[in-house]
Amino acid sequence: MKQKIALLGFGTVGQGICEILLNKKEYLKEKYNYEFEFVAVADFAFGSVYNPNGLNIPAMLEEAKAKKKFTRDLTTLDNVSLITKCNADVVCELTYTDLDTGGPAIEHCKAALESKKHIVTSNKGPAALRYPEMKALADKKGVKFMIEGTVVAGTPIINLVEGPLAGCEISKIRGILNGTTNYMLSEMEKGMGYDEVLKVAQDLGYAEANPAGDVEGYDARGKVTILANIVMGASMKINEVPCRGITKITSEDIQKAKDTNARWKLIGTVENKDGEITGSVSPEMIDLSHPLAGVMGATNALTFTTDLLGDVTIVGPGAGRIETGFSILTDLLQIHNSSCNCK
Amino acid sequence: MKQKIALLGFGTVGQGICEILLNKKEYLKEKYNYEFEFVAVADFAFGSVYNPNGLNIPAMLEEAKAKKKFTRDLTTLDNVSLITKCNADVVCELTYTDLDTGGPAIEHCKAALESKKHIVTSNKGPAALRYPEMKALADKKGVKFMIEGTVVAGTPIINLVEGPLAGCEISKIRGILNGTTNYMLSEMEKGMGYDEVLKVAQDLGYAEANPAGDVEGYDARGKVTILANIVMGASMKINEVPCRGITKITSEDIQKAKDTNARWKLIGTVENKDGEITGSVSPEMIDLSHPLAGVMGATNALTFTTDLLGDVTIVGPGAGRIETGFSILTDLLQIHNSSCNCK
Repeated sequence: MKQKIALLGFGTVGQGICEILLNKKEYLKEKYNYEFEFVAVADFAFGSVYNPNGLNIPAMLEEAKAKKKFTRDLTTLDNVSLITKCNADVVCELTYTDLDTGGPAIEHCKAALESKKHIVTSNKGPAALRYPEMKALADKKGVKFMIEGTVVAGTPIINLVEGPLAGCEISKIRGILNGTTNYMLSEMEKGMGYDEVLKVAQDLGYAEANPAGDVEGYDARGKVTILANIVMGASMKINEVPCRGITKITSEDIQKAKDTNARWKLIGTVENKDGEITGSVSPEMIDLSHPLAGVMGATNALTFTTDLLGDVTIVGPGAGRIETGFSILTDLLQIHNSSCNCK
Repeated sequence: MKQKIALLGFGTVGQGICEILLNKKEYLKEKYNYEFEFVAVADFAFGSVYNPNGLNIPAMLEEAKAKKKFTRDLTTLDNVSLITKCNADVVCELTYTDLDTGGPAIEHCKAALESKKHIVTSNKGPAALRYPEMKALADKKGVKFMIEGTVVAGTPIINLVEGPLAGCEISKIRGILNGTTNYMLSEMEKGMGYDEVLKVAQDLGYAEANPAGDVEGYDARGKVTILANIVMGASMKINEVPCRGITKITSEDIQKAKDTNARWKLIGTVENKDGEITGSVSPEMIDLSHPLAGVMGATNALTFTTDLLGDVTIVGPGAGRIETGFSILTDLLQIHNSSCNCK
């Protein structure tokens, strides 16, 4: 049976997942017996459309690329009504994030779960601010709340912990959660000073004009909070997490680390000590013998400390158009695989 | 509903998984709503037992530790009859491996799948020699053929590819698949010669008295074959894989690598070039900027090259009593999670 998808947000990520699914259509059918149909799309810029029998996505991608509004299957339903009334099995929530209120993504997620539709989201809001509530609602309604894309989208961390690492109790997570700062620290090792390397990172599009989100550690802090709440079951608030960025790291610090066979990394940590769960973000000198020390450039990595296996580390790309698209795809497949025997 | 388990083999791994399940009983119930019952055990040394209402595993563990035969719930059924007639949902195949014939594990797996019981095995035989046949039979009977423990048991590779990385097409796998040789190469870097470090590895129990399986690369070759056949869908035969071990690596080679910012690793490779799948095992100089270069000691690691994410690397422990026990546990949980909504 075809998985029917509603898409909230048709920006970079929304268009990206459409392209990935269209490109991989035959592969996904052959390998996973997975077939899909988009039935609803709502976007602030392009308009809202609904067709219970399936939308013409290639035509919509062309319209979006030409910056034109949608012309087919238009609907006047507002987002929440569309989510509630459409015949989708899964709602992909890919709108913007207000990390103070979580809106409007939280309303979208609630509407979807209430009407027994699975949620797949790369939106940090609902996961960082309301994970326990969303998860409980999803469980109650017998659907899934899938959030692989919210933390290091290009490296499947959440699904790794929930699936292949299931059975292990995780006592600590330490990771390089922000590719921009890891790129900057890698370049500083080659001789550039902080201000110079920040300029290069901005020119390359890694860092924004206002770089605080990356260099002050705020982006990593959001991910630490999500990991603490999801993987450890904490009720951590984002603003309670101690956070120090890389702005004070000097060329002398870089040299000092080199001299002691170590390397500076901006490390996000979540730790469970006898049930007390703490989180933090700060630069640390990591010994070169640790797997995290070798992670260079705009790459992300996490080490899980477990009871049965000791340390398990995963290294991969962070977020990006294709990477975040992947995270949506893998969650759609998880939903497909977990329900295919039941329906 | 309790998952009913039959255990073929009550040696190190069989006893290990029993202890892990007993120790984690409450955690598994709370976290995954997972409950289990052992209903049958067959072991060459301790005898065969069957009780459809559940065995007294703590008592059996005590008997095994005292090297006594089982005394309760004895049965005269041979292994295949026991597998076929017992009321287990899952058969854990943990007997020995004959890598030439695959017996007797292949017969056990076939009997289980034919009678619609899931298989969980850490036994390389069925996976390396008959994967396509076993998988097809499992699919036909609507049950699972789970083999996480056959390759790098302590690092969840198979389930990572099948689950969290689903949707990615994998064109290449390169990995450190043998902890013993990785330990030896790591130690040689500190100054020991090959013969000296082999002696140390044998004293530590990493290498066997006849070390060929490790140092000639045969163990890694078995894993390359399994990965090729499972992950890439190849029909590779173990003896067709070109294989060179570490026996010819000299202290001079080690120094030469150091001088070029590289490090020797015994690398297993599987590659899919336009549908032609090849495998090999040989020592390679890996640049220190690659995640595999930093993997030291008796640790394993694999890098998957994918279409959507580029390289994703996972680093963790290899096989061992607890690690292989983990691989069985995680497969039991995968079966539980994939079937809990259906029954």
